Parts: sequence; C-alpha cells; structure tokens
Amino acid sequence: MPPEPYTVGRQVSVRRPASIKDVAAAAGVSPTTVSHVLSGNRPVNEHTAARVRSVVNRLGYVPASLARSLQAGSTSVIGLLIPDISNTFFAELAKGAEDAAHDLGYGLILCNTEFDADREDRYLGMIRSRFIDGMVYASGSPPSRRRLEALMGKFPIALADEEVEGLQGALIATADHEAGGRLVGEHLRALGHRRALMLTGPRALKSGVARAQGFVRAFGGEVVERVGDFKESSGYRLVADLLDRGGLDCTAVFAANDLMAFGALTALREAGLSVPDDISVAGFDDIRAASLAHPPLTTVHQPAYDVGRTATAQLLQYVTRGEVPPASRHTLPVELKVRGSTAPATALRHR
Amino acid sequence: MPPEPYTVGRQVSVRRPASIKDVAAAAGVSPTTVSHVLSGNRPVNEHTAARVRSVVNRLGYVPASLARSLQAGSTSVIGLLIPDISNTFFAELAKGAEDAAHDLGYGLILCNTEFDADREDRYLGMIRSRFIDGMVYASGSPPSRRRLEALMGKFPIALADEEVEGLQGALIATADHEAGGRLVGEHLRALGHRRALMLTGPRALKSGVARAQGFVRAFGGEVVERVGDFKESSGYRLVADLLDRGGLDCTAVFAANDLMAFGALTALREAGLSVPDDISVAGFDDIRAASLAHPPLTTVHQPAYDVGRTATAQLLQYVTRGEVPPASRHTLPVELKVRGSTAPATALRHR
Repeated sequence: MPPEPYTVGRQVSVRRPASIKDVAAAAGVSPTTVSHVLSGNRPVNEHTAARVRSVVNRLGYVPASLARSLQAGSTSVIGLLIPDISNTFFAELAKGAEDAAHDLGYGLILCNTEFDADREDRYLGMIRSRFIDGMVYASGSPPSRRRLEALMGKFPIALADEEVEGLQGALIATADHEAGGRLVGEHLRALGHRRALMLTGPRALKSGVARAQGFVRAFGGEVVERVGDFKESSGYRLVADLLDRGGLDCTAVFAANDLMAFGALTALREAGLSVPDDISVAGFDDIRAASLAHPPLTTVHQPAYDVGRTATAQLLQYVTRGEVPPASRHTLPVELKVRGSTAPATALRHR
Repeated sequence: MPPEPYTVGRQVSVRRPASIKDVAAAAGVSPTTVSHVLSGNRPVNEHTAARVRSVVNRLGYVPASLARSLQAGSTSVIGLLIPDISNTFFAELAKGAEDAAHDLGYGLILCNTEFDADREDRYLGMIRSRFIDGMVYASGSPPSRRRLEALMGKFPIALADEEVEGLQGALIATADHEAGGRLVGEHLRALGHRRALMLTGPRALKSGVARAQGFVRAFGGEVVERVGDFKESSGYRLVADLLDRGGLDCTAVFAANDLMAFGALTALREAGLSVPDDISVAGFDDIRAASLAHPPLTTVHQPAYDVGRTATAQLLQYVTRGEVPPASRHTLPVELKVRGSTAPATALRHR
C-alpha cells in the first residue's frame, strides 16, 4: 500500500515558519532523515516516515524549495503560448524555449491554444494572477491585440515568431520573414518564372504579410494573390478552386507556409499536374515533412529553435531581475532550401 | 517607463496573512482597485497603482491564487517528461496531455530531456521537491529504472507510451504495441512476403520488443533482425550496411518506428532500389511525415494524443485527491494504415 502523501503548509498563520529542525525535534529524528522522507531520495523506515509526515502536516512545514518560491514572489515558472504543438514549427520553437528555460532552472508551462481565444485568455490569466513569472507569446492565430495590450509593459512578455500589429514596447524575436520571401522571389525569377500564384496567410499576421511583400518585390513578374489561413486545407481549396475555374495560368506557386504548399501539391496531383514538370511549388518554414514530401519541397528554412531560444533567454534576463523587458528586436536569419519542387520555367512540359 | 513589478509574500512570518481588505485599507482604495492593480485587467491611475504595489510588498500580501496553492500544498502544476518534442509523436502526446491538464485547470510543465540522463534527473527532482504535483513520464530513452523506482508508489506518476521494465505498481497508458506489430505481420504475409528484415529499437524499450514479437508471430516467415535505436540514422545505416555486404535478401522491411523506416527508404533509394517495386517497407507510429513521404508509408497509427490524454487524465484523478495512483493499465487500440510503400511480393521486378 502506498504511503499517505504528506501535505505542506496547511497553516500559514504561524508566528515563525517551522524549520526542518522543528520538524526533526518534534518527530524525534535527525534533520537529514526529515529531508530523506520529503525528498524520497533515500529509503526511510515506514513508521518513521509516517511520523515525520504527520509532524510536517501539524507544523505546516514548508520545504525550502517552495518557501523560496513564495518569498521571492516567484514560482520559477514561465509560460509558452503557442497555437499548435503538433505543427513541427512550433514544436521546434518549444524545444528552443524549453532549453533556454532549463538552462536557468525555470520550468516552462506549455500553453497550447488550438487557435481558441477563450483558451488563450485563460492562459494569459496565469500571468495576471502571477501564477507564472513571464510569458513567451508565439500565437499563430490572428493576434489578440487588446488582450495583450492590457499586459504589455506591466508583465514580462516576449513575442516569438510573430509580431502583434500595433503593440509597442515589446521584446520580439522573429525570423527575417521579409528576407525569406525575397529569397523565394529571386529563386523563381532566376528559374525564368514570370507569372506566379501566391498563397498568403491571414492579413492580420505580420509574418505572412512580410513574406508576401518580400516575394512580390524580388520576383518582379506578375503575381496573383489568394488569401489562405496557413492550414493545409486552405492551400488545397484555393488551388483546387482555381483549377476548377479553368486553370492556374501561372508557372509557379509560392505558399507562405509549408502546410499550404502541401495542400497545393495535393490539389495539383489530383488534377493530373506534375510538380515540377508542369508547375513549380515553393513553401516557407521547412517543417520536418518538407524534405520528405514528394517531391521534396523547396522552402525557406526558419530557425524555429533559435527563435524560441532567443525569445526565452531574453525574457528570462529580465524575469530573473524582476524587471519588465524594454522594447527590443532580434531578427534571425533564414535560408532557402532548394529541393525538387522547383525547376526552370523553360523546362515546362505544357508551354 | 514600465511600472516597477510588485513582489508578493516577502514576509511569511505574519501572525495572520494580510487580506485584500488590509491592503485596500492601508492604501486608501477599494478592494476592487487592489484587484485591478494586481490582475492588470483594468487600467488604474499610475500613482494609485504604485501605492497599492508598495503596500502589497510591505504587508506581504499573497494573492488568493498563490495562497490557495500554498495552503493546499499544491502548485497546480504537473510535469510531462518526454525525450524529444520535435518528434511529432511526442508532440501529439503532449497535446493530449496538455488538453487533459487544461480541462482541470492544471499547468503542464514541458520536460524535454533530449535523451539526456542528467536532464531527466533534474526534472524528476521537481517531483521530489514537490515543485510539481505529479509527472507523466513518457521517456523514449532506455528507461531510468532506478531513478523512477525511488519515486514510484510515493509520488503521483503515470507512465505514458512506454512501460518501464521491472517497475511494479504504475499507472500506465500505452498503445497496443504488440497488436500493431501483428497487423504489419499479417499485412505483409497476406501480400505474399516470406522473408523480411526487421529493424527493432533498443531491447530495453518494451514497446519496441512488443512490436517485434507481434510482427514475428503473425508474419510466420523468415525474419532477419537488426537492432537500431529508433533514430532515422540507424535505419539508414543498418540497411546501407546490409546492401554494402551483398544485398538484403528479403522482399520486405518492417521498421519498428517511422523514423527508422525513413532512413531505410533513403538507403534503398541511394542503392537504386524502388519502393514498393523492388521491396516493401512498413513503419510504426504514423507520424505527420509518414503520409507525405515518397512513397507514402504503410505504418501503424498510434493514438499518441489519446495516450497523452489518458495518462494525464488518470493521473490527475489522483493528484486532485492528493493520492498516489494505484497500479492500473490502459491499453489503447492501434490501426494499420496501408499506403504506397507496400505491395504484393509477386509483383516484384527482380524475382
């Protein structure tokens, strides 16, 4: 039968907090034994352990680790708010954030919102109630400007990956989205493409807007734009709709993220079109599946791990000093990965 | 300039804990105003807010949310220990765990170990020190039996996805690994395959052993076994080595996880072999990339989300009651996804 778990700190109205020595004296054991009972690190005789736990409960003894947190007004925990952990981009970002938190002895609470505004609200409430010491905010949903605005400048918050339109004074770590779009534009232009379909994300997301702007400027040719929502289904639907209504009339597709590019690939395949023989397709993010897709996807590699790590490390610099971070921006470089989904326009079968 | 953050609970040695009314009286404001200052929910005049914060610090006022945690001996946080969040299997598992925790108002601390034993030790220390109320343990690394043994039966722990050899009395939620292996064995047998290469995981991991056992029993034919480590590189190396030494001499490969199957696909492609025309390949897990691979991978779909959700929900049933969970097992069903990487043995080009 498992031992009864002990409960700490039932009585907070003691004159002086009970110490480990008080517990040891009342239980008739050494402080070391008390420590072993509480830590579970070493086996202790079951009767002795039960007596120690009973005294711990009676005196309301708070172990040092918990007392330290309380006295410092700090739980040594920060939050990471992301829309979808099963998107490998955010999983990589979370990995970087967790590494940075772990380095400084901080726990990282995973706040996965599933693009649900109520859920995001409840998680943001953790910072208002001081349940967490700070928040790395990497929401890919159209931003909750008003919710965030009430917190920025008062609580330690860092934006990762995505700026929030209109929010001043934030600590921001983001990939160079504009440069990424430019790299794809230059690549397709150099391959001789002059007409492209561009699948963008929601206009409220600055990352997608910056990618589109960079692409349009560097590409130079004609660009037909369709607005998606960064999900695979919207890439599929937008391309399938155009094909249904008489064809794409372009030689290349630039999708502002890989998931939409995958949707486009499926729609093209179903229409009997071959990539890159009939049409080139490029994405953005370089998620794990990009190099495994058929054909392997030409895309922009985002340093997701570094974005998460940088935002978190920067944030913790201020959290550990009990300060709200000032405005500062970290823009991390991106890289074009040329793979099998793009080819010269001159090689097209049906031109 | 941002307001100075306030600090709570500096003085724990008060006779009676300060209430929000005490703070309001001392600051000359209403309790509602104190609440607004602390929550950040509503704007408060900056001078008033500064006065309130100063009183909060002087009286050592602990907001109710933090006080509740302390009094209950509970931080309302549990941990999720996984080896690699960027593996979509564990990301899905984390998503299920986070959903279950969120439903009960618990925060989930992400403990990503990167297969690092020291890191795992430090995270397990959080449960010893009562920093967290419980732990969902889903380590894919060879299990840390001794470390876990010191905690099991004393602290609330649930094992997710992976059993730990020799550990008694655990709460376990896992997919039906043995049935998954059996489904692949039956599938390849029905396709007429009689000689298969099986790439297994480390023998210390019971999940991999169960998959292999299920496969061998159902397949019935000759099975050549090679031991890998569940990483893509080992799938590649094991197959490339066999090809270098004169060929595979089999018509099908069963890899005990998708990542090793991807490595095998790469090695076969580099050797000029076509899948499934020359050889069939099947994996296990059904990670996101499996359906996007070329060819799409036949594999066993594991209910990763359900495993994480079930383990966490079960654990929290006991955590919320302050009990250590008894031994109980939840085995979740798996499903074979037949895709393009497997074909009848009779259709092989080189037979």
